[in-house]
Formats: sequence, C-alpha cells, structure tokens
Amino acid sequence: MNPVIQLLKSHRSIRKFTNQPVSDELINEIVACGQAAATSSNIQATTVIRVRNVEKREKIAALSGGQAYVASAGAFLVYCADLHRPQLACEMQGGQFSAGMTEHFIIATVDAALAAQNSVTAAESLGLGICYIGGIRNHPQEIAELLGLPDHVYPIFGLCLGYPAQDPEIKPRLPLSVVLKEECYQNQNDLEGIKAYDEQLRTYYRSRTGGTKDSCWSVEMKGLVGKESRPHMRDFLSRRGFSMK
Amino acid sequence: MNPVIQLLKSHRSIRKFTNQPVSDELINEIVACGQAAATSSNIQATTVIRVRNVEKREKIAALSGGQAYVASAGAFLVYCADLHRPQLACEMQGGQFSAGMTEHFIIATVDAALAAQNSVTAAESLGLGICYIGGIRNHPQEIAELLGLPDHVYPIFGLCLGYPAQDPEIKPRLPLSVVLKEECYQNQNDLEGIKAYDEQLRTYYRSRTGGTKDSCWSVEMKGLVGKESRPHMRDFLSRRGFSMK
Repeated sequence: MNPVIQLLKSHRSIRKFTNQPVSDELINEIVACGQAAATSSNIQATTVIRVRNVEKREKIAALSGGQAYVASAGAFLVYCADLHRPQLACEMQGGQFSAGMTEHFIIATVDAALAAQNSVTAAESLGLGICYIGGIRNHPQEIAELLGLPDHVYPIFGLCLGYPAQDPEIKPRLPLSVVLKEECYQNQNDLEGIKAYDEQLRTYYRSRTGGTKDSCWSVEMKGLVGKESRPHMRDFLSRRGFSMK
Repeated sequence: MNPVIQLLKSHRSIRKFTNQPVSDELINEIVACGQAAATSSNIQATTVIRVRNVEKREKIAALSGGQAYVASAGAFLVYCADLHRPQLACEMQGGQFSAGMTEHFIIATVDAALAAQNSVTAAESLGLGICYIGGIRNHPQEIAELLGLPDHVYPIFGLCLGYPAQDPEIKPRLPLSVVLKEECYQNQNDLEGIKAYDEQLRTYYRSRTGGTKDSCWSVEMKGLVGKESRPHMRDFLSRRGFSMK
C-alpha cells in the first residue's frame, strides 16, 4: 500500500477542530488541486466561495441543521455547480446559452464533486481534517441569497476544513463484492453482503457509542430513502435556472 | 509541495495505453479507495461495473462516440449512481422506497463522483493513466441494457485505466481568482480572467497541435452550452425511475 492509498483509506469526517486557523496559502493550494481534477469538456463548472465572516458562518451553520463546526472550523468553503461562467463565455462569443438542460446540470454537479474530492485529498495530505456539509441544501434559497449566487449557480455542499481535535475510527464500508461487479449488474449476492455489513456496522456503532447507538445500514437507508428528502430541491433548482429539460 | 499535491497537480487525461493489463488486485485496491471517500449519510450509492468482454467494450466504445481506448485500455469501469441498493435495504426493513426525488438523484450522483475521483487518485499513484468517458451518456439506454442495470441505477461515466503510452502536457486551468471567491459571488473581474485564460489556452492548443488547433475557452463554452446537450437525458432518467420530484 503506497502512501497515497494509505491516505485515501484513512479518511474519516472530522467534526471537532483546534483553534489553529488555516492559512490563505493552504486554501489556495487546496482549491488549485481541485482545479487540477478532470473536468467534462474543460467546462470547469466549479466555483468555491470561502466564507470568513463569523455572523455569516453562524447563519449558514443554523441553516444547515445546527452544525456548529460550520462556524468553528478553521475554514469553511461552499462548493457551487456553476453554469453562469460558461454562459458568460458563450455570450462573449455571440452564442446563446441553452439554459436548463439536465445534461448540463449533471456535468456541473459532477465537475464540482470531482474538484472537491481532489481538494479533500490535498487537505488531508496537509494534516487537515474535513467534513462535507450536505445540510446547506436544507435551505438552499437562503444560502444562495446569503452568497449572492446568480442564476445557473447552485450551492451543492459546504466543506469544513481545520486541524483535527478528535481522532474517530474509520467507518467500515459495504463489502467490495457488493459495489464492484463484473460485466453486468449482478446482485444475487447483494442481500447477503448487506446483511453481513449490517452486523459489522452495528458493532462499529455500539463500540463507538458505548452501546447507546443501535443501528445498521439497512435501518439508515430506510430513514434516508424511505421518505421524501429535501422536496424543495426541484423547485429551488428550477427557480435558479436548472429546469431539467 | 508534498508528493500528494504534486500527484494531484500532475493529472492529465491519458488516451493511449500500453498493452500491459491492469491486475485484478490493483482494480480492487482502486475501487476500495473509491469506497473510502465521504458518502452522504453513508448511502454508498456508487456501483462500479468492470467490463472485460472485448465485444461488449467495442460496443460501448462505439456508443460513446467512437472512443477506441474504451476498448483498448488496460481496464474499463462504468461508474453508476445506484439507488437500487438503498431501496433493497429500505425494503428489507419494511420501508417503502420514495422514488424519483431530485435530492436523492443529487446525492447518488455526487457520491459516485467522489468515489471515482478517489479511485483516479489511487490509480495515478500506482503509475496508471486514466480517462473519464462522459460519452457513455450519448446512448445511456443502450448502455443500461448492455449492463443489465435495474431501475434507479444510471450509468454516469466510464473510466479507462491503463499504463500510459503517451505523455501529454498538463492543460492550464482558469485563474484561481476566478474560481475561488470571498464571502459572496463577486464576478466583476471574471471577464478579464476569462480573456487572459482564453489567450493561455489558445497558446497551449497551438503548441500542442503544431498550430492546427485554434481555439480558446470561450469558444469551447459556446460549443458546449450554446446548444442543447444530450437532450435525451431527462426522458432516459425518468424511464429509469429518476423523475426529479
């Protein structure tokens, strides 16, 4: 196992940080590493907004489900999927922006995720811990207004970065045999793999919480996909120009 | 600059590979590194299908716009955003799957992208080159049928991996000042940054092609977002259970 693979495999989300700030130089380097990721047709649809203002960070923390580390982490970034910049370039050349395509939405979303994950790897290589904040989609309209986002830009997730003040265990994942398939989508052994993982995760939660958390993957999934999730997202996206044509 | 950052910044897509195959052991390690990425609410919505069959790879190459390296690279993986597995787990627990939410579509798409980018970093650390294949969305229905994808699973991109038989230059990116913003979305200097980048990219293309390719970013963007792109995606996704509620 080479050091890069070791680093990737040692990831866990960090939610407690020391007071040490993260320097501008490091943030620049981390965001530049994100830019180095592959980008579909060179669209570079990722825009990163660094929020320093304490009041604004506290507002975002509250809007994201009360995640205090959004305000307290060494640095807080908002990753946006940005089709406004390609639109600007298109119009510079006399073109007319084809707004609202589902395909463009996918390209921009994937672009931002690839860039963010490169940034995360860079940050972790520098000794920082990170936590993605999907909770900024709890109230995306308010976030978009706080950040002054133009149409065709949406806030996809936040990213907390800082020097770790905790050392949590690495969370086990589904068996490789369940997620890596050969030639086609064969799932005759998936139920068995999920059951084995359920037991592994149950043990992990018990050991981590001194026995107080009793859950497993299938129970988590029932909670996640067994009900509506952020049902405002379609209308929000549509209002921002992502009408999913 | 530490070795991880150096690795991330040295990325360029590879489209010519030696004949050396990529071992199963490496592919397993690479996919396991993908699993180690952050995953929204632990959903682990990424499924990777390795295609070895030569005829099938040639079909996928043809369906993806005639990209021959899809068939010839040391390994070819298809990354899928998979809500079928969480559905299975939800139903194991007596829950009822809430199909077609836009939010679940975003979660699954981001999940697959984060996993893929970790896999790419792992692969490049092992001396492999990679190329993402967004072209599998040219004919997603045919790809889904070839791979036997169930409902609520869609093929998001392919990934070619192999030992590089070329050493292309690193493509320049937009200025950091354009993509990293402070406090809110300020873009008063973006036009200037885009124009500077246009010139840089024009020089890069000329030098790389001996003067035959004369293009720049804004021209590329006009070609990309100045017209419809894969207008079949909405109906395809809807038919697969992603109705964007």
